[in-house]
Amino acid sequence: MDKDTQRISDFRQLVHRLNEIGDKKNIAIVWAEDDHTLQAVARAAEAGFANPILVCSEQTAKAYSGKYETVVAQNPQEAAEIAVQMVKQNKADALMKGFVNTDVLLKAVLHKEHGILPKGNVLTHITAAKINDYPKILFFTDPAVLPFPTQEQRVEQVKYLSHFCHAFHVEQPKIALIHCSEKIDERHFPYTQGYQEIKKMAENGAFGNCIVDGPLDLKTSCSPEALATKKIESPIKGEADALCFPDIEAGNVFYKTITLFSQAETAAVLQGTDVPVVLASRGDSVESKFYSMALAAIISNNKQ
Amino acid sequence: MDKDTQRISDFRQLVHRLNEIGDKKNIAIVWAEDDHTLQAVARAAEAGFANPILVCSEQTAKAYSGKYETVVAQNPQEAAEIAVQMVKQNKADALMKGFVNTDVLLKAVLHKEHGILPKGNVLTHITAAKINDYPKILFFTDPAVLPFPTQEQRVEQVKYLSHFCHAFHVEQPKIALIHCSEKIDERHFPYTQGYQEIKKMAENGAFGNCIVDGPLDLKTSCSPEALATKKIESPIKGEADALCFPDIEAGNVFYKTITLFSQAETAAVLQGTDVPVVLASRGDSVESKFYSMALAAIISNNKQ
Repeated sequence: MDKDTQRISDFRQLVHRLNEIGDKKNIAIVWAEDDHTLQAVARAAEAGFANPILVCSEQTAKAYSGKYETVVAQNPQEAAEIAVQMVKQNKADALMKGFVNTDVLLKAVLHKEHGILPKGNVLTHITAAKINDYPKILFFTDPAVLPFPTQEQRVEQVKYLSHFCHAFHVEQPKIALIHCSEKIDERHFPYTQGYQEIKKMAENGAFGNCIVDGPLDLKTSCSPEALATKKIESPIKGEADALCFPDIEAGNVFYKTITLFSQAETAAVLQGTDVPVVLASRGDSVESKFYSMALAAIISNNKQ
Repeated sequence: MDKDTQRISDFRQLVHRLNEIGDKKNIAIVWAEDDHTLQAVARAAEAGFANPILVCSEQTAKAYSGKYETVVAQNPQEAAEIAVQMVKQNKADALMKGFVNTDVLLKAVLHKEHGILPKGNVLTHITAAKINDYPKILFFTDPAVLPFPTQEQRVEQVKYLSHFCHAFHVEQPKIALIHCSEKIDERHFPYTQGYQEIKKMAENGAFGNCIVDGPLDLKTSCSPEALATKKIESPIKGEADALCFPDIEAGNVFYKTITLFSQAETAAVLQGTDVPVVLASRGDSVESKFYSMALAAIISNNKQ
């Protein structure tokens, strides 16, 4: 079968594909003490792609003993340290944040000695979104972690985006480097000059089989009509599979706008770490947490 | 009648209000040579709030003589210069871009000697958007002109936003200073510190009767539920009337996302100039151009 006809175009197809693969990923849940997280965990276990390991209080461990693997921790911080250790010992294929502050989890993840971010790796946040009016999953970075990426960091972001698209069986992903216009403006926006270098790297195969173009704005990236109206040529043709935002403010506004005003479904993981880390926030829906676990599972199945 | 009950909540109400006011604004159209612009002009004339002055080719002037006031120009550049002169001579209350490049129009507008940007004024771009899922007009800045506003420029932006809300009869506008999170982070995002000063200025009445809060993200600004989930207190209560974005990338992504994925209706004008300037782009709908003329009319009626 042609690879692109196997393309995963929405989150239901993702779960279906994980079932076909039939592999169960060990996902350690850091301080699994809130209903939303536990509901998402139940759905992932039921769907068959996750073997959840609850790192949790004694009380919760008792309640779920027999159902899931459990490890008792005294507090959220210890839970984070235990979960990170499980990754080091190859006992966990992915981590997921439960009822623990992001700072506490990240401290354990990023610890210089005991953490799981290899030296020199770029930590960034990748979101997969299904927007009603868009016919495929749209990946983007970075709405949450890297403030103003340097050129070197952006190169890594594009690598991750290409990798994610390939894991979703997009044969030749189209990756747009986002800017407020299509003009290179070295004076006000030096990164638009950097975009040219990334395009050249892509042409030379640095990101595998993919097409990179930019600067493009959000509409010329995602709308063939907008591209035609502006009379611009782009190999992305208004059909981007992935967007690389210039800064965290732009990425965050995109994330918040599509979830608030376009009923988008999203899933997200951290990249750069030894295994994918789901950093779902309190405000995320059970659905979004469940899809994030599925995203972590497929990515950990397709290691770079 | 209470002022807030007169609030203009969508663009149809705006046109209705302009009819009640019954004033006709002289709007000079710079190189009125494309169908989209001429259709918007026809609607504005018919709606009764605009007296269009076409600065155009001889051929177009002939075609519209008797219908609108016309002034013949030899080319787009001359049209821009003539229109700007009409502002200087109090013959035009607003300008609108026709089939002319933005650069050409801005060159005439910003000309040090003959232009219409008073020295020291901050040129910025204000958009008014009606998003389906949001119960009111949402003003925001800046998606198009100021790359990375300084603190001084941001203060002016907030002044403009407050002024626009008041022109729409919002008695006490709620203005959110946008950031990717609600935390002040002087190290990575120095402007979040600046936001505190703007809040204090607002409390001291610098922007008239209004509430300013931030840093807030897009969701905690525009969704009471998101605010409640995050357990954050804000006097904006998730009901922002206006958003001030930290940079042009974030503002532009918001503008493009709501128009592409949320079917938002928009209107926009430049502020800082002696009169409002409509900089509608080729890709904008006739509707959007028409609403922008209405926005220019109400703003020129409510001079700061």
